[in-house]
Amino acid sequence: MRVAVMTAPGEVRVEDRADPVIQEPADAIVRLSATCICGSDLWPYRGIEALSGPRRMGHEYVGVVEEVGSAVRTIRPGQFVVGSFFASDNTCEICRAGYQTHCVHRQPGAPDGAQAERVRIPLADGTLVATPEVPSDDLIPSFLAASDVLGTGWFAAVAAEAGPGRTVAVVGDGAVGLLGVLAARELGAERIIAMSRHTDRQKLALEFGATDVVTERGDEGVDRIRELTGGLGAHSVIEAVGTQESMMQAIRSTRAGGHVGYVGVAHGVSLPGMELFFSGVHLHGGPAPVRRFLPDLMDRIASGRINPGRVFDLTLPLDRAAEGYRAMDERRAIKVLLQP
Amino acid sequence: MRVAVMTAPGEVRVEDRADPVIQEPADAIVRLSATCICGSDLWPYRGIEALSGPRRMGHEYVGVVEEVGSAVRTIRPGQFVVGSFFASDNTCEICRAGYQTHCVHRQPGAPDGAQAERVRIPLADGTLVATPEVPSDDLIPSFLAASDVLGTGWFAAVAAEAGPGRTVAVVGDGAVGLLGVLAARELGAERIIAMSRHTDRQKLALEFGATDVVTERGDEGVDRIRELTGGLGAHSVIEAVGTQESMMQAIRSTRAGGHVGYVGVAHGVSLPGMELFFSGVHLHGGPAPVRRFLPDLMDRIASGRINPGRVFDLTLPLDRAAEGYRAMDERRAIKVLLQP
Repeated sequence: MRVAVMTAPGEVRVEDRADPVIQEPADAIVRLSATCICGSDLWPYRGIEALSGPRRMGHEYVGVVEEVGSAVRTIRPGQFVVGSFFASDNTCEICRAGYQTHCVHRQPGAPDGAQAERVRIPLADGTLVATPEVPSDDLIPSFLAASDVLGTGWFAAVAAEAGPGRTVAVVGDGAVGLLGVLAARELGAERIIAMSRHTDRQKLALEFGATDVVTERGDEGVDRIRELTGGLGAHSVIEAVGTQESMMQAIRSTRAGGHVGYVGVAHGVSLPGMELFFSGVHLHGGPAPVRRFLPDLMDRIASGRINPGRVFDLTLPLDRAAEGYRAMDERRAIKVLLQP
Repeated sequence: MRVAVMTAPGEVRVEDRADPVIQEPADAIVRLSATCICGSDLWPYRGIEALSGPRRMGHEYVGVVEEVGSAVRTIRPGQFVVGSFFASDNTCEICRAGYQTHCVHRQPGAPDGAQAERVRIPLADGTLVATPEVPSDDLIPSFLAASDVLGTGWFAAVAAEAGPGRTVAVVGDGAVGLLGVLAARELGAERIIAMSRHTDRQKLALEFGATDVVTERGDEGVDRIRELTGGLGAHSVIEAVGTQESMMQAIRSTRAGGHVGYVGVAHGVSLPGMELFFSGVHLHGGPAPVRRFLPDLMDRIASGRINPGRVFDLTLPLDRAAEGYRAMDERRAIKVLLQP
């Protein structure tokens, strides 16, 4: 089968590899309907995160189960499933508390990469969520978005306690930030301020429910948020970038007692203790427990209530994955869907 | 009147100064029944925090109102009152959300120092809470504890979401940490692990409701907490020290999805973003909004339900404040009460 492999920064090839096989009794093999490129795939692509050797890429996937291991009880061949970037048993104490990304048995969600034709998924019963029937093709992008970016934006909005009566600011206009806007709207936020300087992304943010757009960033962005909130700062701020500047922008845009939900993988970030102390904000985030939200998000997608698949503004065949990486790296595409 | 003044690190004198007078219409003048020395007073005493000149010390106080300004509506001369280290209007949006330490009109709680015979308190109506009658002398230490250390330990326990079914670990065995133990018990925590290597403090922790004592600190302390919690870490961790080591000990002792409540003023602390991200913990803290909790805490004290005044293990006349500072600096006393 065909698999996207990153061989060096800026270098992605699609190569032939053996089809995956069941290795553990809890495994499932899924034939992918669609996969995609993640903002986090750009960290090694840009050389910011080290590659120890050729890496099979991808961790977002939807598809149809082909085979399951002998210990799999609930997932069955023929089912359409969505999974995420960590495999979890969904039964341990940490999973039951809703933190499946920290499951005591967690494993990489797609250990051999999901930018491929087929994937092996560990802990299939705990990890995969099946739809009642195989959905129509037009819903595939939205289910694929649920696999990571929607679930991550949703977690950020929940961590930021977005809800009725609250003003939410969103730092980051990538797919996660944009879907943080959508999540905040679904959670009933009163006002949603998208921070973006790109016209196409502003447009999508407004479509997803943003009520205001702020184009300034850094300290000027903080000043704008304060101006828009009576000098106090937002109740809830979603951080969806993962740099020192974006984290400080998020913390400083939040009122005392407010909540920062941060999901950008914090590369090279160091938080000054004294400033954090006197800010009085709540801070919560990390790798999103997408599994917690999947059943609810999949219902909202199936019913047509939300259309998170709108973040995919470029679709390519898997064989042209390298083009997709370039488009995302150059910010010509928000998010690239790959068709195996 | 007599006032304690820090003239240099390690140097505290009690000097004669003019009695305070009403300066603003919202002020009150309070004749102090008792005052005390705070762990945070040791930062400048030890030269860790710079002194810009002689500093009138103290921010914890209880006493009887002598005089009020023309704009004061609810506080009256003759009332016994408790206040805290920030003055707040208690009416702004931030106060109403329970973050009075970040009040949009906040001022120092006792601008001219509370280790004195009398204090001027700004924003008296918002800042001071009066008891129905002047309490008996035996309750004075507990009301004084409410002014800062009890309210701060309580806030830490609330920020850490201590409650039924939860295991709470407490980093720091000073007055705030010990009262964090008491707060966790009052909030219904199932298990409370005090981290302390001092016999007298362990004893008080057990009296306040600790169920376990861990003597190890740093990484060994973290390992012990994990051993005691099935490898997962505590649900709730109270940080009541304010150093890099104590913050990391607190974060690493908390399970994914758990809560760190930190109230130690974070001197020289820098939090590594990537570790915080992958820890999956909630972080909340800062200067405790003691005012939020005062009415409830004062009820619990008046009814004899709690006895936080037990943290005062040395009582001295105000004139001997220097001795009190030495005793706390050398950890011979947990907390020193000064009698004006």
